[in-house]
Amino acid sequence: MKFELLSTDSSSRARAGTLALPRAAVETPAFMPVGTRATVKAMTTDELEGLGYRLILANTFHLALRPGDEVIRDLGGLHRFQAWPHAILTDSGGFQVFSLAELRRVTDHGVVFQSPLDGDRIELTPERAIEIQENLGADIIMAFDECSPGGCGEREAEQAVARTTLWLHRCLEAKRREDQWLFGIVQGGIHLPLRERSAKEIVACDCPGYAIGGLSVGEPKAQMWPALETVTTHLPENRPRYLMGVGTPGDLVRGIDLGVDLFDCVLPTRNARNGQVFTRQGIVQIRHACHRTDPGPLDSSCSCETCRLYSRAYLRHLHQSNEILGHRLLTLHNLAFLRVLMAEARHAILDGSWTQWRDEKLTQWETPVDSLPGEA
Amino acid sequence: MKFELLSTDSSSRARAGTLALPRAAVETPAFMPVGTRATVKAMTTDELEGLGYRLILANTFHLALRPGDEVIRDLGGLHRFQAWPHAILTDSGGFQVFSLAELRRVTDHGVVFQSPLDGDRIELTPERAIEIQENLGADIIMAFDECSPGGCGEREAEQAVARTTLWLHRCLEAKRREDQWLFGIVQGGIHLPLRERSAKEIVACDCPGYAIGGLSVGEPKAQMWPALETVTTHLPENRPRYLMGVGTPGDLVRGIDLGVDLFDCVLPTRNARNGQVFTRQGIVQIRHACHRTDPGPLDSSCSCETCRLYSRAYLRHLHQSNEILGHRLLTLHNLAFLRVLMAEARHAILDGSWTQWRDEKLTQWETPVDSLPGEA
Repeated sequence: MKFELLSTDSSSRARAGTLALPRAAVETPAFMPVGTRATVKAMTTDELEGLGYRLILANTFHLALRPGDEVIRDLGGLHRFQAWPHAILTDSGGFQVFSLAELRRVTDHGVVFQSPLDGDRIELTPERAIEIQENLGADIIMAFDECSPGGCGEREAEQAVARTTLWLHRCLEAKRREDQWLFGIVQGGIHLPLRERSAKEIVACDCPGYAIGGLSVGEPKAQMWPALETVTTHLPENRPRYLMGVGTPGDLVRGIDLGVDLFDCVLPTRNARNGQVFTRQGIVQIRHACHRTDPGPLDSSCSCETCRLYSRAYLRHLHQSNEILGHRLLTLHNLAFLRVLMAEARHAILDGSWTQWRDEKLTQWETPVDSLPGEA
Repeated sequence: MKFELLSTDSSSRARAGTLALPRAAVETPAFMPVGTRATVKAMTTDELEGLGYRLILANTFHLALRPGDEVIRDLGGLHRFQAWPHAILTDSGGFQVFSLAELRRVTDHGVVFQSPLDGDRIELTPERAIEIQENLGADIIMAFDECSPGGCGEREAEQAVARTTLWLHRCLEAKRREDQWLFGIVQGGIHLPLRERSAKEIVACDCPGYAIGGLSVGEPKAQMWPALETVTTHLPENRPRYLMGVGTPGDLVRGIDLGVDLFDCVLPTRNARNGQVFTRQGIVQIRHACHRTDPGPLDSSCSCETCRLYSRAYLRHLHQSNEILGHRLLTLHNLAFLRVLMAEARHAILDGSWTQWRDEKLTQWETPVDSLPGEA
């Protein structure tokens, strides 16, 4: 396991690198599709591989509840369970506990909550989060953190910072497997001094990579970017940086610009199932009546199966009929779009054209497309 | 377009042949996957082609309502709309009108009903059914028929027989396109004299193929097989015969044995989405707890992608989590299973081992599998 930084843009923080993991060489910046329940919704692993993805995400919280991490361990681990030969990153369950679980009680020891499946009392601690992730067997695992709500006050954010540092120490102590990378997570909400403090405390633990948590959780965008910039300023150059939960095309470009290497988000896959697709010209809502008889592809510059074979009229029909194939084809396209976007970003960083490419993209996407005449 | 009968079993009515259509040579007996709304649910056309299917079905009733047959015509027809290069058969809408539509009024002229989408008053007549099917552009189209309910009385069944003959004449009169085969449909419920009368009246119209409708619609199996046998006895040897709505593995074998060449049914795809899968050893309900930690494939003798890559434990997990990938993988397997079943049946007919093969299959499937110990 090794992270090699190949190039940093001269007039921004944008970086290009390679993350060498046992099962994959991941070119960064990279977007990681989210496979919550050991499946990237609507996709086979063959299709993900075909799109060029080599690193996907799975959720500790959901998999520990069902089918259970020990079941997956006994079946040979998560890679084998879902037939994915490349790399996996598992989150720690922290974010889900704080966003989904009911009847939650948080102490320095950990979190007790009620299972959304059967109402059972469940405890998640740093030690248990590591145990689950060792059972699942991902290549990169995450520290158990406290994620404070978007735009919360300084006192609440400070408590989350302190606990997240405390819990990282316990995660490192609990960790047994040598073949997994444990990333620490920086918290601190939108409070820049707290972000700096958290970054320093987490970096002091000398992790092989660092995640930025607690952003894109409801705070205004205008407060998110300064918080992100504060963190990346305090992270070491030679370790990968992972911005959790970010995934619109525009936000990916801005995140790369501020020095992020890895991203994940359910948005590209979830929005696809809701009929929202990315194109070079901006967001398209496939349900709109203007697509009803449109024989053209979603995006004429895209070479994915969806754009090669199917018209907007057919895709709209599938979506309006709630057909599984509609979910498949729109998901495939959104993931193809992000994969190409990240490859282009990397190329631009490596050949010195990053700022120009970045500005072109961000300008393009500020024009909404659905209302334009002559769209084919 | 040509139907070539290659072999008829000496001690049963089982037949093997080839249906030569402009876009495909279809080996019979054949099962046709149902693509109700211009998509075989959960599957791409690439996957169907990969499984060996060359003839699929689509529904006139559903497609005329949404997106509309004229929309599909203007987009280049159904083949292009759904990116399927091989053959398509469309039903006439008759079955759906009689099973799905509300506020229905039937006269000799046709059927008036309320659209389930928007409540609009819609009229379907033999002429309109042909117009829709000519707009859709399938290779084989069906006459508009009246399908009497399963096990209905003789008077009701007789009226359906009379109307179905009357309507076939009007369909033939209305038909304009030369590149589509129009199949007549035999009705008559479970009443053997009516079945004989209907078969004779329909055959008198000299269609290129004949369908058997109004079976597998709720009548007891013990009454279905004699009705089917009566019909096939009165159909010409040199035309393909299509038993509508039949699709369990056992019923397919029995249908072949009575001289049927083509079948369609939503059951293999619908049941897959409900977690019910076909295996060599019988039906498996993937939700059953016995599969929770089972590392083995659904069917160790099956070479489909689902059986090659995934364990029963994973498939159960996907199904329990209502994941789209679960629907995909189980649908893929059920369709792979039926494709192999039909290929084996054809092989057995051609090499003279039909009755032996048939009896082996029917015996196997009478043992329920889920309860057996040692299932892997």
